[in-house]
Amino acid sequence: MANLVIVGSLALDTVKTPFGQVRDALGGAATYASYSASFFTKPATATTGVVGVVGVVGNDFPKQHLQLLQQRGIDTSGVSVDKTGNTFRWEGCYEYDMNEAKTVMTELGVFANFRPQLPDSYKSAEYVFLANIDPELQLKVLKQVRKPKLVLLDTMNYWIQNKKQLLLDVIKKVDVLLLNDSEARQLFETPNLVKAAATALKLGPKYIIIKKGEHGALLFSDGNHFSAPSYPLEAIKDPTGCGDSFAGALIGYLASKNSSSEKEIRKAIIYGSVVASFNAEDFSLERMKHIAAEDIEKRYEEFERIREF
Amino acid sequence: MANLVIVGSLALDTVKTPFGQVRDALGGAATYASYSASFFTKPATATTGVVGVVGVVGNDFPKQHLQLLQQRGIDTSGVSVDKTGNTFRWEGCYEYDMNEAKTVMTELGVFANFRPQLPDSYKSAEYVFLANIDPELQLKVLKQVRKPKLVLLDTMNYWIQNKKQLLLDVIKKVDVLLLNDSEARQLFETPNLVKAAATALKLGPKYIIIKKGEHGALLFSDGNHFSAPSYPLEAIKDPTGCGDSFAGALIGYLASKNSSSEKEIRKAIIYGSVVASFNAEDFSLERMKHIAAEDIEKRYEEFERIREF
Repeated sequence: MANLVIVGSLALDTVKTPFGQVRDALGGAATYASYSASFFTKPATATTGVVGVVGVVGNDFPKQHLQLLQQRGIDTSGVSVDKTGNTFRWEGCYEYDMNEAKTVMTELGVFANFRPQLPDSYKSAEYVFLANIDPELQLKVLKQVRKPKLVLLDTMNYWIQNKKQLLLDVIKKVDVLLLNDSEARQLFETPNLVKAAATALKLGPKYIIIKKGEHGALLFSDGNHFSAPSYPLEAIKDPTGCGDSFAGALIGYLASKNSSSEKEIRKAIIYGSVVASFNAEDFSLERMKHIAAEDIEKRYEEFERIREF
Repeated sequence: MANLVIVGSLALDTVKTPFGQVRDALGGAATYASYSASFFTKPATATTGVVGVVGVVGNDFPKQHLQLLQQRGIDTSGVSVDKTGNTFRWEGCYEYDMNEAKTVMTELGVFANFRPQLPDSYKSAEYVFLANIDPELQLKVLKQVRKPKLVLLDTMNYWIQNKKQLLLDVIKKVDVLLLNDSEARQLFETPNLVKAAATALKLGPKYIIIKKGEHGALLFSDGNHFSAPSYPLEAIKDPTGCGDSFAGALIGYLASKNSSSEKEIRKAIIYGSVVASFNAEDFSLERMKHIAAEDIEKRYEEFERIREF
């Protein structure tokens, strides 16, 4: 009975940054997001408040990766194992300024044939995170969810370039649109983020969240504006998965509160920023594996002091 | 009896942005900063809390420009008129994204021979803003001020490239170092602003303020961190002078409170952000000319709501 459904990639990542590298490490948007959400949601044995993942892995996906998610109370019955091929692989590197990943190689593997199919136990989910996949598939997922209270949508520049109209169709159907700043500028064809958000709001979503990496995040709603600070990290080891960790914590927190009020969304953005800031401190999910609820609360309180005047 | 002394350029600016242009309009760091500070300081007839400017203009500088400052209660007895040449002229343009000015032309004019000389009535000033000029001249100014409580220093990439050692010498003598993000990265040779600020703090200043334009501003002090949001402007006409307006309001507010506590510096950064956000709404000092104390207070309260969670 997953109450929060997260749809997206599970991947094996090879990442190189100025501070180290990993090969075929656990990655993927749905992986980062569901792990991050699990700090707020309930174990799979509960009847409500559970996070369920939808995705596909190949015959080479190590069993312990799925077990890692299961140990966090995440329902993985929506992850299909496609034995006809390999897991989605991404190879990327970051330059010295760590701002943006350069994709070295992408091997879609079984992800190329991914047709998201929600288990029946997921279909009454009230909270849905459509992580970055083909907008056509995102639409297919939405048709399978009976009556969601809040749908959060992420995307990437590739779909803006290649499937813009379909992406706009999805945007019209969701409650919260999540973009990074360059995507917002590209999609709405303006350098001004305020203008971009105003245009986005007219399409339908009630909230627009713009992620700005080291500069924090912005929330736009009808007539209101919120600016979330970023956490002052002196040592960023690997920013891979930060956006997905941000989104996972955000919707995980909202699902746990069963609320989509602006008040709670502001807090959710801070929780997203907290978990994302931890995630950047190590490769893959290594840092997230070693934090507990109290670490998150402590850093949340630091965020309170950071914005105080 | 100027209690706050601002040393820097008075200029005639020719600026082109996607939203219009001006020719030989009033500009210059000291102009923007002193006008901005005057929203917080007292009229020149008062015995304390007065802002005094130090700079030089040529024989072509329209009288009404100095009168404009005087009408704001600014003491201009430190502005010398050098009849041997023209006023400093800067010509710049902004691209569509309005992020950074491209300098088209600089004519130093009488500014090339500028040797800042403080009137006796300025020498007991407690607050000093060394706007962007040659660090050698900034050092000369510091020698003329008897016992300042707070010295705020600004600079630019040109001095980082060409007079780095002298600039570091000045930094060691000031209380607050103001930089924009690219200058901070350049001066301290790291892409990480947290690291840059940590290095800067070791040189001597008690506070490091990093301006990030549309992304707000950061304050670093020993063990503390503050992140100020930016104001969501949908229409930026001309960002020229925003950094100087920010600095002027910041030190003007501190001088009016006679404080350099971190609590007041955080508020001062918000006041700086408020006045800078107004300044961007029109060319030259046009927008600042049409705001009053209550407009500033109203936008300050908006900043409070922007960061609330």
